Amino acid sequence: MNNKKIAVLGYGVVGSGVVEVFNTHKDSINKKLGLDANIKYILDIVDHTGTGFDEKFTKDFNDILNDPEVSIVAEVIGGVNPAFDFTKKSLEAGKSVVTSNKELVATKGAELLKIAEQNGVMYLFEASVGGGMPIIRPLRMCLAANEILHIAGIVNGTTNFILTKMFEDKMSFDSALSLAQKLGYAERNPSADIDGHDACRKICILSSIASGKHIYPDKVHTEGITAITEKDVEAASKLGYSIKLIAYMKKLKNEKMQVLVAPMLIPKTSRLHNIDDVFNGITVVGDAVGEVSFYGKGAGKLPTASAVVSDIMECLKFSSLSQSAIWEDSDGSEVIDYLDGEFSFYVCCQKGFDLEKIFGEAINIYEGQDENYYIFPSLLERDFQAKLLLAKESGANILSTIRLLNN
Amino acid sequence: MNNKKIAVLGYGVVGSGVVEVFNTHKDSINKKLGLDANIKYILDIVDHTGTGFDEKFTKDFNDILNDPEVSIVAEVIGGVNPAFDFTKKSLEAGKSVVTSNKELVATKGAELLKIAEQNGVMYLFEASVGGGMPIIRPLRMCLAANEILHIAGIVNGTTNFILTKMFEDKMSFDSALSLAQKLGYAERNPSADIDGHDACRKICILSSIASGKHIYPDKVHTEGITAITEKDVEAASKLGYSIKLIAYMKKLKNEKMQVLVAPMLIPKTSRLHNIDDVFNGITVVGDAVGEVSFYGKGAGKLPTASAVVSDIMECLKFSSLSQSAIWEDSDGSEVIDYLDGEFSFYVCCQKGFDLEKIFGEAINIYEGQDENYYIFPSLLERDFQAKLLLAKESGANILSTIRLLNN
Repeated sequence: MNNKKIAVLGYGVVGSGVVEVFNTHKDSINKKLGLDANIKYILDIVDHTGTGFDEKFTKDFNDILNDPEVSIVAEVIGGVNPAFDFTKKSLEAGKSVVTSNKELVATKGAELLKIAEQNGVMYLFEASVGGGMPIIRPLRMCLAANEILHIAGIVNGTTNFILTKMFEDKMSFDSALSLAQKLGYAERNPSADIDGHDACRKICILSSIASGKHIYPDKVHTEGITAITEKDVEAASKLGYSIKLIAYMKKLKNEKMQVLVAPMLIPKTSRLHNIDDVFNGITVVGDAVGEVSFYGKGAGKLPTASAVVSDIMECLKFSSLSQSAIWEDSDGSEVIDYLDGEFSFYVCCQKGFDLEKIFGEAINIYEGQDENYYIFPSLLERDFQAKLLLAKESGANILSTIRLLNN
Repeated sequence: MNNKKIAVLGYGVVGSGVVEVFNTHKDSINKKLGLDANIKYILDIVDHTGTGFDEKFTKDFNDILNDPEVSIVAEVIGGVNPAFDFTKKSLEAGKSVVTSNKELVATKGAELLKIAEQNGVMYLFEASVGGGMPIIRPLRMCLAANEILHIAGIVNGTTNFILTKMFEDKMSFDSALSLAQKLGYAERNPSADIDGHDACRKICILSSIASGKHIYPDKVHTEGITAITEKDVEAASKLGYSIKLIAYMKKLKNEKMQVLVAPMLIPKTSRLHNIDDVFNGITVVGDAVGEVSFYGKGAGKLPTASAVVSDIMECLKFSSLSQSAIWEDSDGSEVIDYLDGEFSFYVCCQKGFDLEKIFGEAINIYEGQDENYYIFPSLLERDFQAKLLLAKESGANILSTIRLLNN
């Protein structure tokens, strides 16, 4: 029983990192746990000869599934297929599964958690949000005695890098994106990052833990950062804000939740204001603990692998335990229409039109060369959109609008 | 088995908070865990009639010890006696113990963890460092796959409040301390805070988790903040630093550790630079994850209680499990003599003596009205002390010295 076997599904960036981190620390891990655990299989469709682990590689998932020695499966393939199928079968076969696969957890979490519970095994995903930065376990365990009232996070390193370059080096969005791609921080098809889908999956996972109900990505209003202009950056700076892509959850009074992903102006008083480059930061407000924040590298081979291996260690320690499902399925009725949410707004408008005539008094105004930049106090999105439409119909040339992150 | 009983030892600030947080969230806690747990006893030597829990109060610990229904004991008395005796007896009787008692964990942790292991129960202490801010569990579990290379933390809210007032409001140490006492942030006898003992206990706990060896407080060089002057504050500000009481651990190459508590100059590039007031912040560097940081309220009734209750929940979930001891006993030989450690130093010296003649070229100098303020590059403390002595013997009037936190 002490001779536990692990299988790693996928030998890409994260998978090779998992093998590296586990092997580097194997002695201390086994000493800590009083075990003799090791990696028996690595599944990959590509040949990886000469890695030093040739005898561990297989291209057939059934080798792993049918091997009763394997008690823990690390799924680091990413995407829904075939990861979902492999995860489901592993759990049904009584193997615990750990993963960094935020897409799978965000879209199939409730189902997989239930299967894990029914089979007396665990489905863990510390690496799915924040990379190596601890957030899932702190939220699930350390803050378990709290009602989670609010979460605001910078959870996508790619967009944070791009926005940082736009602020610090006055780069355009396109140049910053190109640089991110050149440095390997952005994919050739960057849509999942820059359009906010990755951040959306992550806020779904965090909101599901916080509420106990599966919040699905298609219920979450999601905006990316592609509309942010150099003029917005300049105005935000002058007004004392940074701009960050924020994954946002707020518990409302009627058991409902406001969940969305959008770029927001971040005041200097926020702990998220100066979290720059590829770093991630998340603030969580609990009713007993108040505000707590987490900061770290949100991605990267070894940081992410470090979180996957910590989950492997939890499974090694507690593998005979049934885990009560962290959240259950839901029809999404907890999430309000984003138009019923409330925010303060930044509006950039070509000069020659007085926006205050329509929006009322601004909190702050910055006069640019050709534009005026207003900060309007909090109002319902629905009302904001209506006023915006009215302003446009009245001749205002609105160039951009951005929400403010309220503390 | 599902009808688990909890006993709370001590009904002071934290104890009454534990009862409040548990009762407020009892339904959701029990729903999460599929249990019907509740608090059966509250031990206190003082009468607490009219709290609404009259029937739960007892003055006799044996009522709790001898009640087989009680499976979890929350020790929030503080101090070593009688907390040690109660904890030991509870563990030996097969009851898990959770605590916020940093003094007890720092001085008796190895022994109590071993007793817990031998009796197949848990001894948990999330609340002992950082109050409600998650740090113990993230370090013990989320970062378990890392070698912890470095920890630097602001872990004492009282001293942080005093230093913040000295910086922001130009208060003297004495006035800031008085204000802290008036606001209830400092005890009437403030020594444990201002002399660094509280921070010392906390870095002992964190270092013990990081190294697997019990690091005892008497092995840790500890300086408080009483020597910090208004002139130091002014000079540090001019030079671009804040001053914080830092709990410090650094893994060295030879399996040794540098552990100390001292006020340090914090550069703007550090995430600890602007953690102000009673807040705590801890940065941890792991070999795989890189730097991660945690921030939150380090003390206070409900934040601390929230951490105690999260530990109660872990015991409720896993109470039948044996926990492998997190660290073992040690003779302290891992900790180097602090004089063998290396730091950069700030030195305040009365004008009329050129300190660079003795220390070599400074990194930075700020000229005050009557003093010069130097920042000297990294050197062994032993060498620094020797040079300091030489300077004094040569006629230099050294008014203060402070270490720099290197990133």
